[in-house]
Amino acid sequence: MKIQLSCPMPKFDFDFITMGHGSGGLLTNKLLDSGVFDILKNEKLDKRHDGAFLEIKGEMAFSTDSFVISPIFFPGGNIGELAVNGTVNDVAMCGAIPKYLSLSFILEEGLPMTEFWEILVGIKDACDKAGVIVVTGDTKVVDKGKGDKIFINTTGLGEVHSKADIDINNIKIGDKIIVSNQIATHGIAILSVRQGLEFETTIESDTTNLNHSIINLLDEFGGAIHLFRDPTRGGLSSTLNEIARDTKTGIVLQDSKLPINTQVKSACEILGLDPLYTANEGVFIAIVSSEKASLIVNKMREFDNCKHATIIGEIVEEHPSKVVITNTMGGKRVVSMQIGEQLPRIC
Amino acid sequence: MKIQLSCPMPKFDFDFITMGHGSGGLLTNKLLDSGVFDILKNEKLDKRHDGAFLEIKGEMAFSTDSFVISPIFFPGGNIGELAVNGTVNDVAMCGAIPKYLSLSFILEEGLPMTEFWEILVGIKDACDKAGVIVVTGDTKVVDKGKGDKIFINTTGLGEVHSKADIDINNIKIGDKIIVSNQIATHGIAILSVRQGLEFETTIESDTTNLNHSIINLLDEFGGAIHLFRDPTRGGLSSTLNEIARDTKTGIVLQDSKLPINTQVKSACEILGLDPLYTANEGVFIAIVSSEKASLIVNKMREFDNCKHATIIGEIVEEHPSKVVITNTMGGKRVVSMQIGEQLPRIC
Repeated sequence: MKIQLSCPMPKFDFDFITMGHGSGGLLTNKLLDSGVFDILKNEKLDKRHDGAFLEIKGEMAFSTDSFVISPIFFPGGNIGELAVNGTVNDVAMCGAIPKYLSLSFILEEGLPMTEFWEILVGIKDACDKAGVIVVTGDTKVVDKGKGDKIFINTTGLGEVHSKADIDINNIKIGDKIIVSNQIATHGIAILSVRQGLEFETTIESDTTNLNHSIINLLDEFGGAIHLFRDPTRGGLSSTLNEIARDTKTGIVLQDSKLPINTQVKSACEILGLDPLYTANEGVFIAIVSSEKASLIVNKMREFDNCKHATIIGEIVEEHPSKVVITNTMGGKRVVSMQIGEQLPRIC
Repeated sequence: MKIQLSCPMPKFDFDFITMGHGSGGLLTNKLLDSGVFDILKNEKLDKRHDGAFLEIKGEMAFSTDSFVISPIFFPGGNIGELAVNGTVNDVAMCGAIPKYLSLSFILEEGLPMTEFWEILVGIKDACDKAGVIVVTGDTKVVDKGKGDKIFINTTGLGEVHSKADIDINNIKIGDKIIVSNQIATHGIAILSVRQGLEFETTIESDTTNLNHSIINLLDEFGGAIHLFRDPTRGGLSSTLNEIARDTKTGIVLQDSKLPINTQVKSACEILGLDPLYTANEGVFIAIVSSEKASLIVNKMREFDNCKHATIIGEIVEEHPSKVVITNTMGGKRVVSMQIGEQLPRIC
């Protein structure tokens, strides 16, 4: 894949990552000094200590994810953006305002510097959009054939929103389940690249930062929101099954309410994939009190990344710990948790 | 290598890691439920949200490292202990008291469960020794041949010690440089396994948590300590060169003062390795005011992991940004930063 650099790469005196870039010595320093520290520049990172010093008030949320997606460039993003958005969103799902990230690379010997640079640009752009900064990091290199181009770990810290009361124990019978946007898009976008599938228009990953939407909702609705979760790998089915299991309540979904892009739906049908099991990156679910559900959905639809927000189901007393979906004919089926791996290395 | 399980492994209904264990679905949950959550059990991890909720007061230190060491089991430890100790120590080097860790695995398909379990036991033991807990985590699986058994990221958080004033800008001409223990041990321990070298007694990695020693020193000497750093990969030379560069001062070392185990020294000579460039895991340097240096060294020698603490050099006005070592004959040579990679994947 030809990389289009959206930000010019500075002059490095090497074209590929070598083992020496992981030595902690001169080459590591050259890699970091020649642009890497520049592009991610901020007061805390500039200290270049073994760790960063931070001042956080009150309760914090702390979340980590390693990203091993393949391919590392895909329609709608790259592994760098995904790594920032993924952790920003996990922190946001705790009802917190993401502030700081750590960033750790495992590079495979031979990774072209142009690709590494483009990923760094993606990281920088995603950080700017989310309003977070990278304050500390690490770079390791593994021998060719012992990794796969690049793996990224990001770990995030945020301040819990003063109005947030996100706790799975707050979920009550009758609560509504809202999904924020069209589902299954990320999974199909990645699969289409892997399989060389073509659609009328390119299906792009929905990777995006959800924190601003989450903060807006907490500002306005606070304690009416009982849980946020982002159904990434494992899809909606895994997330909802975990919630049903942990709350020992039942979950009922309405098939006809699930928002899904027409092309994504067709792709799922052709490929034999169930959209409920297909990965999302820019979607969250909110479990909210029934009284406020309509207001919350209406508010969400004002946000660019929640245009298709919909109430898709509710928490019920029946069939505890199970997720059941009903179709328009009145038919019902149990949606169990995904057993194996539908689409490996999707994030 | 035959694994000796120091803690019995529960019954898993699979013997090897498969791609499905990274799906986020049923198999991921089975892996986590069957003992993993048990062994690392604590109130915060038990919440099983996308992130952990923490309450930290005042200033914090935040540090990340990914561990890609090969082999993953070695004399004196395994990649799990190393991953905990490495990040605990980085947080401690900031003058902070490590409290919480995130833990993220990238597993290669086919990793035997016995090996994964032994690594988890190593993680648990190291956490207990350091007094930290794992509060959030992530597990990814990559296809066979796209990773190398296991890579681990840990990211740590700690509270900055009330008496700490660790800042590279506090370093003054005349400050003494103390090394806490014998150098080059970790590098030689790993190399001896890789090369099948045999010594009279096994050379074991010095991996250990340094936080208790650091806290004791801060309790007693506070502001007299200007900098802590742990010279891991890249060895003493890289760390001291970074300090010389960043402070624009000179550093003078005395060759005869460098504490080194006799067998490690012989191994370095035979293998043509310079101990100044060889990796450490359980060693730190402290740059301290000259008035308190002897008191600090004496105190350090009371700690189990600082028995060989020694003043090895000082900060000077001459040759700014350079590290120079003098031998007993009065000869001098410049110790430059390591250029390539002496021992790849040492941590």
